[in-house]
Amino acid sequence: MNGEWGDAWPDAGSGRHWHEECGVFGAWGCDHAAQLTYYALYALQHRGQESAGIATVDGGEMFHHRGLGLVAEVFGPEDLERLAGKAAVGHVRYSTTGANKLVNAQPMVFDVHGGPLALGHNGNLVNAGVLRRELEDQGSIFQSTSDTEVVAHLIARHRGGSLVDAIVDSLRTVQGAYAFVFLTPDGLVAARDPQGLRPMALGRFGSGWVVASETCAFDTIGAEFVRDIEPGELLVINGGGVQPVRFAEAARKALCTFEYIYFARPDSDIDGRNVHLVRKAMGKRLAEEAPTEADVVIGVPDSSISAAVGYAEAAGIPYEMGLIKNKYIGRTFIQPSQALRERGVRLKLNPVRKVVEGKRVVMVDDSIVRGTTSRRIVQMLRDAGAREVHVRISSPPVRFPCYYGIDTSAREELLAARLSVEEMTRAIGADSLAFLSEDGMLQALGAGPEAEGRGQGGPGDTFCNACFHGWYPTRLYDDLGKHVMEMAAHRGGYS
Amino acid sequence: MNGEWGDAWPDAGSGRHWHEECGVFGAWGCDHAAQLTYYALYALQHRGQESAGIATVDGGEMFHHRGLGLVAEVFGPEDLERLAGKAAVGHVRYSTTGANKLVNAQPMVFDVHGGPLALGHNGNLVNAGVLRRELEDQGSIFQSTSDTEVVAHLIARHRGGSLVDAIVDSLRTVQGAYAFVFLTPDGLVAARDPQGLRPMALGRFGSGWVVASETCAFDTIGAEFVRDIEPGELLVINGGGVQPVRFAEAARKALCTFEYIYFARPDSDIDGRNVHLVRKAMGKRLAEEAPTEADVVIGVPDSSISAAVGYAEAAGIPYEMGLIKNKYIGRTFIQPSQALRERGVRLKLNPVRKVVEGKRVVMVDDSIVRGTTSRRIVQMLRDAGAREVHVRISSPPVRFPCYYGIDTSAREELLAARLSVEEMTRAIGADSLAFLSEDGMLQALGAGPEAEGRGQGGPGDTFCNACFHGWYPTRLYDDLGKHVMEMAAHRGGYS
Amino acid sequence: MNGEWGDAWPDAGSGRHWHEECGVFGAWGCDHAAQLTYYALYALQHRGQESAGIATVDGGEMFHHRGLGLVAEVFGPEDLERLAGKAAVGHVRYSTTGANKLVNAQPMVFDVHGGPLALGHNGNLVNAGVLRRELEDQGSIFQSTSDTEVVAHLIARHRGGSLVDAIVDSLRTVQGAYAFVFLTPDGLVAARDPQGLRPMALGRFGSGWVVASETCAFDTIGAEFVRDIEPGELLVINGGGVQPVRFAEAARKALCTFEYIYFARPDSDIDGRNVHLVRKAMGKRLAEEAPTEADVVIGVPDSSISAAVGYAEAAGIPYEMGLIKNKYIGRTFIQPSQALRERGVRLKLNPVRKVVEGKRVVMVDDSIVRGTTSRRIVQMLRDAGAREVHVRISSPPVRFPCYYGIDTSAREELLAARLSVEEMTRAIGADSLAFLSEDGMLQALGAGPEAEGRGQGGPGDTFCNACFHGWYPTRLYDDLGKHVMEMAAHRGGYS
Amino acid sequence: MNGEWGDAWPDAGSGRHWHEECGVFGAWGCDHAAQLTYYALYALQHRGQESAGIATVDGGEMFHHRGLGLVAEVFGPEDLERLAGKAAVGHVRYSTTGANKLVNAQPMVFDVHGGPLALGHNGNLVNAGVLRRELEDQGSIFQSTSDTEVVAHLIARHRGGSLVDAIVDSLRTVQGAYAFVFLTPDGLVAARDPQGLRPMALGRFGSGWVVASETCAFDTIGAEFVRDIEPGELLVINGGGVQPVRFAEAARKALCTFEYIYFARPDSDIDGRNVHLVRKAMGKRLAEEAPTEADVVIGVPDSSISAAVGYAEAAGIPYEMGLIKNKYIGRTFIQPSQALRERGVRLKLNPVRKVVEGKRVVMVDDSIVRGTTSRRIVQMLRDAGAREVHVRISSPPVRFPCYYGIDTSAREELLAARLSVEEMTRAIGADSLAFLSEDGMLQALGAGPEAEGRGQGGPGDTFCNACFHGWYPTRLYDDLGKHVMEMAAHRGGYS
Repeated sequence: MNGEWGDAWPDAGSGRHWHEECGVFGAWGCDHAAQLTYYALYALQHRGQESAGIATVDGGEMFHHRGLGLVAEVFGPEDLERLAGKAAVGHVRYSTTGANKLVNAQPMVFDVHGGPLALGHNGNLVNAGVLRRELEDQGSIFQSTSDTEVVAHLIARHRGGSLVDAIVDSLRTVQGAYAFVFLTPDGLVAARDPQGLRPMALGRFGSGWVVASETCAFDTIGAEFVRDIEPGELLVINGGGVQPVRFAEAARKALCTFEYIYFARPDSDIDGRNVHLVRKAMGKRLAEEAPTEADVVIGVPDSSISAAVGYAEAAGIPYEMGLIKNKYIGRTFIQPSQALRERGVRLKLNPVRKVVEGKRVVMVDDSIVRGTTSRRIVQMLRDAGAREVHVRISSPPVRFPCYYGIDTSAREELLAARLSVEEMTRAIGADSLAFLSEDGMLQALGAGPEAEGRGQGGPGDTFCNACFHGWYPTRLYDDLGKHVMEMAAHRGGYS
Repeated sequence: MNGEWGDAWPDAGSGRHWHEECGVFGAWGCDHAAQLTYYALYALQHRGQESAGIATVDGGEMFHHRGLGLVAEVFGPEDLERLAGKAAVGHVRYSTTGANKLVNAQPMVFDVHGGPLALGHNGNLVNAGVLRRELEDQGSIFQSTSDTEVVAHLIARHRGGSLVDAIVDSLRTVQGAYAFVFLTPDGLVAARDPQGLRPMALGRFGSGWVVASETCAFDTIGAEFVRDIEPGELLVINGGGVQPVRFAEAARKALCTFEYIYFARPDSDIDGRNVHLVRKAMGKRLAEEAPTEADVVIGVPDSSISAAVGYAEAAGIPYEMGLIKNKYIGRTFIQPSQALRERGVRLKLNPVRKVVEGKRVVMVDDSIVRGTTSRRIVQMLRDAGAREVHVRISSPPVRFPCYYGIDTSAREELLAARLSVEEMTRAIGADSLAFLSEDGMLQALGAGPEAEGRGQGGPGDTFCNACFHGWYPTRLYDDLGKHVMEMAAHRGGYS
Repeated sequence: MNGEWGDAWPDAGSGRHWHEECGVFGAWGCDHAAQLTYYALYALQHRGQESAGIATVDGGEMFHHRGLGLVAEVFGPEDLERLAGKAAVGHVRYSTTGANKLVNAQPMVFDVHGGPLALGHNGNLVNAGVLRRELEDQGSIFQSTSDTEVVAHLIARHRGGSLVDAIVDSLRTVQGAYAFVFLTPDGLVAARDPQGLRPMALGRFGSGWVVASETCAFDTIGAEFVRDIEPGELLVINGGGVQPVRFAEAARKALCTFEYIYFARPDSDIDGRNVHLVRKAMGKRLAEEAPTEADVVIGVPDSSISAAVGYAEAAGIPYEMGLIKNKYIGRTFIQPSQALRERGVRLKLNPVRKVVEGKRVVMVDDSIVRGTTSRRIVQMLRDAGAREVHVRISSPPVRFPCYYGIDTSAREELLAARLSVEEMTRAIGADSLAFLSEDGMLQALGAGPEAEGRGQGGPGDTFCNACFHGWYPTRLYDDLGKHVMEMAAHRGGYS
Repeated sequence: MNGEWGDAWPDAGSGRHWHEECGVFGAWGCDHAAQLTYYALYALQHRGQESAGIATVDGGEMFHHRGLGLVAEVFGPEDLERLAGKAAVGHVRYSTTGANKLVNAQPMVFDVHGGPLALGHNGNLVNAGVLRRELEDQGSIFQSTSDTEVVAHLIARHRGGSLVDAIVDSLRTVQGAYAFVFLTPDGLVAARDPQGLRPMALGRFGSGWVVASETCAFDTIGAEFVRDIEPGELLVINGGGVQPVRFAEAARKALCTFEYIYFARPDSDIDGRNVHLVRKAMGKRLAEEAPTEADVVIGVPDSSISAAVGYAEAAGIPYEMGLIKNKYIGRTFIQPSQALRERGVRLKLNPVRKVVEGKRVVMVDDSIVRGTTSRRIVQMLRDAGAREVHVRISSPPVRFPCYYGIDTSAREELLAARLSVEEMTRAIGADSLAFLSEDGMLQALGAGPEAEGRGQGGPGDTFCNACFHGWYPTRLYDDLGKHVMEMAAHRGGYS
């Protein structure tokens, strides 16, 4: 453990406004760039349903449209038509808590250095609060409560050198997790943080180039995967092709494992691994580590189905659809009152009585955060007649909050931070409960125990598993600055 | 073959405006009836995404709200609040072609016999055109282009007797497929057509009663399944409880098999069978009838997953997620231009390269209608590197159009109506193609070959398999009347 | 007084749901008929701001669009484009109380006799309730709570003869005030009630024909006035030109004087008289009948300005703008709370202090109904420093409710029904109050005292002055039927 | 002529994006401040229909809502409810050309000096372009294309001293026309430019204070007029009362005469004069300067009615309503096609044939800018039968563009800049044409010829008459900076 890896334990409750898991996309030299971005964002929709936006450049002009809601809600045909040009950046944003306002939607567009700059960001900057306070003291006026805007102001105030110089210097100032896309009339810039916490890949579309948070966006638009962007690497893409710039020392890589466990789409490949196959391998490994006598294996849809199928296959127990998820749930849905909840109204998941009735059921889920969902599902299965319910979790217990963009939760809300596995078993009402070990998880990821990045170094990739063991790959800051932004977020303003 | 079973072959192209697969729900004596109906309709949303509506009664007053779109789009909190009372009927409507207008949304509400009547309908009436023409000749003014309104006018013109008498007589006049719910201040009436073509079940919610097209609605609201409503049976539900009335001779039952194959939710039970388990059994049976050497089994999401898992289990080949469906597609989505399609943009399904690359793939789907989707998926899998693609269809070839509410297609568009299986294999570009046999299908449904309702009679249920062999369970009418309604449907009016 | 002139005194409170002062327009053989109608309705907007609608025919097809709100809110460019054809009818509807629902918006469109029929109506039918009940008893289903729909059902049930025959017979069945426009693929029909209570004129537009409630619509679209339609006359307009049909005996004409006093636009001519000039003549005559010493004459905008200018001119006292009306008030305006009202917030009218301060003011208004507005304005002027306020009303006292479409009020609310002029002076807080005499009004209208239609007959026009003296020009019906429709209007339904 | 008065002649075409005639309002210490502001903005609606906004403070928090459209369209009841607190600023904005975007709507709200600041602006800053370029060079990021935002950045970058110091220094840096309202949690600041080009007054509302562009806002909310704010004066309003600060030398006052001629409401008093009475005096004076033989005097509604009544009174010719304006025209109105225009469709004004037919008509208007409207009205009157049309303009010829917020036009478009009065008479097709002289105008304003502020000094007020003679009361800047902002305005972005 050393200085680079944060050991401070910041106040758990304060981090929540910062979480911004999102999806980004960029295109350069592509016909119909806005339409292309629209379909790419649609493929990345699972990474963010709060807002969507696209900015394009055509000659020296920038065009911009963003709005709250799903991609299909935000854009009409006339919006796409207005977004002229062969270069674009797009963004979908995830709703955590608070501050779902249009000004926070991305890409953001600013006038800097006498020209327009659009930027989109996936991740979370841990020193944004401190930097914002400094910039405001110097007379900068912020438009949003987003940490992303800090980078725009750093670039705007940069003196001397090119815009790429300004971007590089600004990225060296901020810390945290990010995949960034920048668009100007002169080029597209894509950057991944020094730890590689958030994924980003480069692809080829005809004679043009594309970048995206996940490769499923390439498949959707018919682009060809070229390579993952390296941690601490920035690509300058323009008429001259793709120019890689290494703006940070090759730190120990620390890709977020939750991208595999829960967040990414099963058909995406991240840093060379297919998400579905990793999940299925986790399920198989889990069956080996924690076998049980049972009649059926079921998964909690959608993210746990791969692991459940893997468990079933390894265990030789039939896989069944024991839980059905309603796929029509949307943002405008009216939640049932307490009275109706008590009467048994349940919207998201429905157990299949004829599948579980009288059966010993293995229920595979990808993670336990607060435990409320697990308890509810176990009870639901018992109500539907399950004789035994054995819960199997295809990742280790989550004991620490995430500061890099995954909305896990404050520490005191994490079930595994407070209880032993035995206590958790009782808490969720299961007949048995088992988690995949960290070693098992790393093996499913195709890496040895040395891969976990505890400082020993070693061959192969390393991952950020801070939520499992609390060793954070960056410095953490006290939350003085955060309070400033939270206050701003609560204010009525910034319509 | 006899008179009861239609042998006329009406013009295939003309039937399309009639298809109205929908979902209905009714509640009587239930607190928060409107909210309850809202959640029930949400559970039935897969049966219709075009429009949604609820009507309630409170004392002698009726309240009504309907709109175009999903349940969550049509209703706001203030709408539900306004829908006072402990009795309600609700409806979701399926968009086939044309006539997606508010006046066609259901439930429809009319003033008849000096009081309000709401009605909701799932199915299709085959003599609606003829009846409408007669009613219009007598001076009735229609508000919509829906066949459902014919029943309202028949009831309004009925002289003498109670409203239930009027309903019974009206149902004896119409022919075709239907699950009907009627609501008046005095009671809720639910009716299923004499052949039982469309499903409907009765449930208990506390001290009140509920009826629904599918049992998944009961699970969602925490109601208890009581029994299926019988073909030709009508239930009068009011303060005195549930009063069954048999308004038609117990005809040979002819439940639509497509409810199991494709339409219903996997967690629903219809006439005693669970949909997921029937599908899985079809997949297993298919593996026995049409085995093949392969490395992986994949299903076309969502409706074919159960069959694919069954095939994999019976065949001993690993089941994998080889095709991922984007779950965010909505009604307002902008379709890609031809140029972008040719460039490879594909939105609905994405193959998982690492799953199929270099593999012999069994691709399980539930049916082939026009064949265009199958051809596209086969090509997609080959593009992703599949070495062989063996298509297995978990139902028999669809050779005849449906006149009872399932939007199959006109006959000349049905691939199996024109081509042999061998020709179809080439048409979709597969290495092999096989369909489940009708006998196999019936066995998966737990019925012998006698169950198919070819007129021999016999034990057990019978089914409508008209789309497979063309023996229709009702008389069919020439489409003179239909043209009248189609003309009306094309007119600009009736906003 | 005789049987034709109603002497029954129906319950005053019950008439209110019937009031429907509106504007109608029709065009035949005109290019861009929908656009033309749009601009004509815009000119007639003062006759109704609740809803607007247009129906057109092109070949055998009818197109239709209507909505709640102003003309400019209801129609977008694409709506007008969709309304194809060279013939149209349009309607604007006035909001009285209750029942502002889309189903009540006009023109209404129905399928009758195997074809589409659109109809629009200005006025009020006094026997609609009775007829509706009879029709419902025979099985007719009504779509709206509007009295207009009764006519559609009468036409639909008519057997034998042409559509014009059906219209004529239906108009002979209904009683009350109306200007009707009917549109079918075969022609445009315009009809004015036998008493001529509501105005309607015929105009020429190029080689086509137009009809409108007021001639200002002709000026706006550049049409040429041809003639007023006669009471009891119906015009059949089609490819063969204009065919007049007299469907009722030439009853004593009884044009509503309130059209001149308050309702119509000053630039319209009705039955040969210009509205502004009639109003100015009323003001002059009022100055002669009720002179006073004063420094300034002011009018209550907008409808009383003409009379005020006339008064000032005849009295030789300067006319000033002493009251300014805010012209931006709209339907969605938020009304001030009681607290703010008490603090002095007043929105509609503002006195001009420098005009009235220290002055003796003559305040001219067109009528007094409940007296609340007059009292408020008098107080407002005193607060602004007026030394004396002399109120002069350019019409006689309103003592009786209207059943023909003008929303005067229930009888017990009419100030002049309860109080003498002296008592009214005190009630509104004026220094003096005077009304124009009936004779004076008739002279301003260019008619002698015999013109009032009290049964003596005589040369020249006659008018309906029922609101002044209670002699109604048609039979009145008890309101049994009305209750039925009011109940329906209060129901939640008919979205 | 001296340095203070601009003599440069900037390119006429470039000034157009700057014009922002608007209305501002502020309240401090008033219950229901947001509602109060809503009604005040409604009274000021004639000053701007493009957008509306309100910001309030409650404790240390600021609340903010703004939108495109009329006050009644922008605010709903829940918006007003959310705007908590007893202090508010409000704004309505006028649409000139381009840049009608939400980001340009006011009040704008910014975080400066660690707290929120709202500002609203009526007028136009002539050095905003230059200042913006300087600020952007220093790294400031602008959110809008409005000149108002320059002031916010100047305040944000101000170091040392209080916020009032920062406002004073910033106002000393900008030049041009302005009435500004600033709101922070600590107080309300209202400032009027050193020349007093734009009006602003102070009023009392109970124990609180209000400021407004026009006094009609005070009348509407029941506030009491206290005094006009002085040119170069700033009022600091907080718990301690009203503190006046003189931030600029008392320059020669140069109130815009167009506020009287056209822009302000007739019931407002500006710098002690009532607008209606000034207009009537202008009309009387015009009758003396340019009499004519005629039968009727008519005015072009709405702004010329007062002058027309004055002319009629002085000339002893009857005043009549010869032109009627449709009061329902709104922003969403569909303009007639060229074809319909040629067929005679005219929407805004309608002549009253019976008033003008066969008559010699004096048509009074307030000004001629491009002359197209005058020509059209003259023709319209002739078409309606007028025998002679004598045009009388109640202000001098407009020969120079305005840079202070009135949207006159570019110079080459001004009819009087190109043609003599005789040529103009022919151009508009009148029988005669006369303008009020500058001396006559000043006398109607109650000021001698010395009042015009040509540099001689003298008693009484002075006015800005730059549009009549081209002597501008401030320095003018080249439009280098303007191009930057115009480019930004044309860009697609900043949604």
